[in-house]
Amino acid sequence: MKKPLILVTNDDGITAPGLRTLIQLMKEIGEVVVVAPDSPQSGMGHAITVDNTLYSQKVVVDKERGAPLEYSCSGTPADCIKLALQEILDRRPDMVVSGINHGSNASINVIYSGTMSAAIEAGIEGIPAIGFSLCDYSWDANFEGARAAIQKIVAEALVHGIAKGTVLNVNIPKTDGKIPKGIKVCRQARANWKEQFDKRISPTGKEYYWLSGEFELLDKGEDTDEYALSNGYVSIVPTQFDLTAHHAIQHINNWNLHE
Amino acid sequence: MKKPLILVTNDDGITAPGLRTLIQLMKEIGEVVVVAPDSPQSGMGHAITVDNTLYSQKVVVDKERGAPLEYSCSGTPADCIKLALQEILDRRPDMVVSGINHGSNASINVIYSGTMSAAIEAGIEGIPAIGFSLCDYSWDANFEGARAAIQKIVAEALVHGIAKGTVLNVNIPKTDGKIPKGIKVCRQARANWKEQFDKRISPTGKEYYWLSGEFELLDKGEDTDEYALSNGYVSIVPTQFDLTAHHAIQHINNWNLHE
Repeated sequence: MKKPLILVTNDDGITAPGLRTLIQLMKEIGEVVVVAPDSPQSGMGHAITVDNTLYSQKVVVDKERGAPLEYSCSGTPADCIKLALQEILDRRPDMVVSGINHGSNASINVIYSGTMSAAIEAGIEGIPAIGFSLCDYSWDANFEGARAAIQKIVAEALVHGIAKGTVLNVNIPKTDGKIPKGIKVCRQARANWKEQFDKRISPTGKEYYWLSGEFELLDKGEDTDEYALSNGYVSIVPTQFDLTAHHAIQHINNWNLHE
Repeated sequence: MKKPLILVTNDDGITAPGLRTLIQLMKEIGEVVVVAPDSPQSGMGHAITVDNTLYSQKVVVDKERGAPLEYSCSGTPADCIKLALQEILDRRPDMVVSGINHGSNASINVIYSGTMSAAIEAGIEGIPAIGFSLCDYSWDANFEGARAAIQKIVAEALVHGIAKGTVLNVNIPKTDGKIPKGIKVCRQARANWKEQFDKRISPTGKEYYWLSGEFELLDKGEDTDEYALSNGYVSIVPTQFDLTAHHAIQHINNWNLHE
């Protein structure tokens, strides 16, 4: 049987340990090609490079833990997918996986996530796609506990397919190497970030800010990704890119818009 | 009666004629404060500035067509909203409007849109928010035909509110100054971009690409934003930031994830 072609990308950049782990895991399942940003792209949301040049080159990052074909790209995660599909790959991949992100993309974080934007970009093109994130922001995070769940989810997705118009947002709890308790299919928890801006003065006297904030969970549901993660489970949220709030159409249809 | 406080932003930058038009229109409805990017941010999706400095300053762009309080910001549209809410405004705005974008944000464009990311950021914070876009990419686009519809939609939204968890994505057809035929409440059309990469060689011999593409409508529905626009109507799509594909949960629950 022909091995599936798996395109791997991320948003932490092509040298990130999370990406290296994902490459290793995918090499056991299929033929792997990597197209990933040449620098960190965290918080890039679904940005694409418009009105600017895009560089890409074949690279060897890590002979031992790499893929036979790896390309770095000066753009965003969404750019990487577009470039891979249009210019780099000679056939359509069977799956796109993005990650393993160093940090959570559960709940409202999905909106800001470069990791997930790569998966969504692939989904828009009709390719089964999954974003993986470990709830540990450190560069030397321990990905051991995540391995079995990631391989199981990719294998099942290859067998069953992923529903049209959706991609998977998979988050893995920080377990310091231990196997999570299990895997739960969830909805996105309602939450936001309580921003704090740290105001400073530059050496030349200009005011500037650092954005920081605290995550604020606003959802007591037990069917959410945040609930699963806080109880030691891997969360899978099927995520869509048709953003229409169908339930709200009726409300607006009663507005006085037609005089 | 106290005038509503309206926060105005965009993604084309603080000097864009579309923003200037929106400021004028909102000044007839409420008290206006502008916090907008100091440079074009098209295609920035829901990017935010992480691990980088953010500058903001009070500016006067256009005495005649400006607001009493305007701030430029070095960040993305989503950054502008966060900074405005946390640092600049002394009270919570009654509404956030973003635009008028120079170019369509209908259909799948909503995913890449900086204009809409500002509205969504406000929606996440629980503030009624609307993104406005004119389907004309030129800098000197004619916004005359858009005026009445924009004022009507904002006025109705102030009266009726916007459903919790949603923001409005309003697109206005290119009419060269004429009034659109009417306003339709729609769903997001299914579409994608067929990418084309223009490959070139830099003066120093490096390969680079320009991203371009053609919009490909994949949806024959007559209830879509694209259908309304192509028939001369303004489209309103209620847009949500809970991306959970609830209909797909059942499918994944039958996967073999628990052994």
